[in-house]
Amino acid sequence: MLHPIIILVEPQLAENIGMVARAMANFGLSDLRLVSPRNGWPKKGAHSAASGATHVLEGAKLYDTAREAIADLNYVFATTARERGQMKRVFGPEPAMAEAHARIASGQGVGILFGRERTGLENDEISLADAIVTFPVDPKFSSLNLAQAVLLMSYEWQRRATGGALPFGSEQSTPPAPREMLVSFFDYIESELDAVNFYPEDKKPIMARNMRDIFHRLQLSEQDVRTLRGAIRAIAEGRRLRNR
Amino acid sequence: MLHPIIILVEPQLAENIGMVARAMANFGLSDLRLVSPRNGWPKKGAHSAASGATHVLEGAKLYDTAREAIADLNYVFATTARERGQMKRVFGPEPAMAEAHARIASGQGVGILFGRERTGLENDEISLADAIVTFPVDPKFSSLNLAQAVLLMSYEWQRRATGGALPFGSEQSTPPAPREMLVSFFDYIESELDAVNFYPEDKKPIMARNMRDIFHRLQLSEQDVRTLRGAIRAIAEGRRLRNR
Repeated sequence: MLHPIIILVEPQLAENIGMVARAMANFGLSDLRLVSPRNGWPKKGAHSAASGATHVLEGAKLYDTAREAIADLNYVFATTARERGQMKRVFGPEPAMAEAHARIASGQGVGILFGRERTGLENDEISLADAIVTFPVDPKFSSLNLAQAVLLMSYEWQRRATGGALPFGSEQSTPPAPREMLVSFFDYIESELDAVNFYPEDKKPIMARNMRDIFHRLQLSEQDVRTLRGAIRAIAEGRRLRNR
Repeated sequence: MLHPIIILVEPQLAENIGMVARAMANFGLSDLRLVSPRNGWPKKGAHSAASGATHVLEGAKLYDTAREAIADLNYVFATTARERGQMKRVFGPEPAMAEAHARIASGQGVGILFGRERTGLENDEISLADAIVTFPVDPKFSSLNLAQAVLLMSYEWQRRATGGALPFGSEQSTPPAPREMLVSFFDYIESELDAVNFYPEDKKPIMARNMRDIFHRLQLSEQDVRTLRGAIRAIAEGRRLRNR
């Protein structure tokens, strides 16, 4: 078991099970256990909601009780939106998955229990767990959809397991243009602006500095400088043509 | 604008819009903008999927184009699962919401663009944005449901805005029992075990220490010690009754 195992206790809607499978696959999880799905299993509707995460649904294991579904695991989290008065450690999703990562790295099997859509986990099911996970929701609107709860745990697992690696990063931008090219560009702008008497004589130094500031902030590459210089030249020459 | 604004560009399914509203409300967001919803608006199906987040749906503002929907904002993120060859900074959800938080704290309006269910944002829409957000998904299964993408951004916003505060924490456990009470409990266990000749004479010291170790790890409270002592006494007295 190289990943945490997602355990749904008496899920009702096949669509939700499908969306759980999709959320798991989005973040690299695949071990799904179902405890007595209310409407039987397999069930129409799950596959289309899984949107391609068929391998998760087809690999799902069925159990009669939560107790049987966690029997082979070494550490179990129970998710709940409500305080249950059980003396267990309470985690947010991120520290929970840090704990899961450390335990799985040392060879332990880790599972996460999710309750029924309407009523969550029963207290007796929560008492099977080593720790509680809850979500940093707005207390005025705390009811997470089942697949959303699974998504957040899967997301935090993946972030911990991969160091938050994104599928792509910022484009390698070309290096900033050599300063000589940039200063020559500034000279060019100022010469074109001088040609149309843009600057009042007494304000010219400060206005020119402000203009340079704007272009400095852009961190222009060589290509950027050529593009802008070409655009300004085109406008200036258009004007010269009109002025003939 | 005290929170980031969620902007859905040409969303197709009313159910998805409803689930977006629910995900936003779960994490304290409420400003929703809709750009040309494919099937019109308002639309049946959104309310039931919103599962009570009616205020978000009813406050949603309609726009014809993404350009109009971001006109009054100071900084805009575009979400995408695919690299677009645009020289923009790429964020994961957590650093994106750190950036949003800093900008909103300084009075800026911040929006997040989400694209169509099937095809995402067009390149021209992405070019309206200041930066890109993408998700740390499994590259083999990278297509997030629309509401799931909104959920992750809302979750990271709320974590940043509240310092990850959970709706409840670990139960304040009662303090560990006084050591005198614990040592007296150990003595009691050992006396009961001596009474049934549990320990082979030569192993007694090490076995007793191991037993003490187990109970030490539990960090028992006064109530815990009374509970366990009572349970052991009941078993021992039951045996004595049988042995009469």
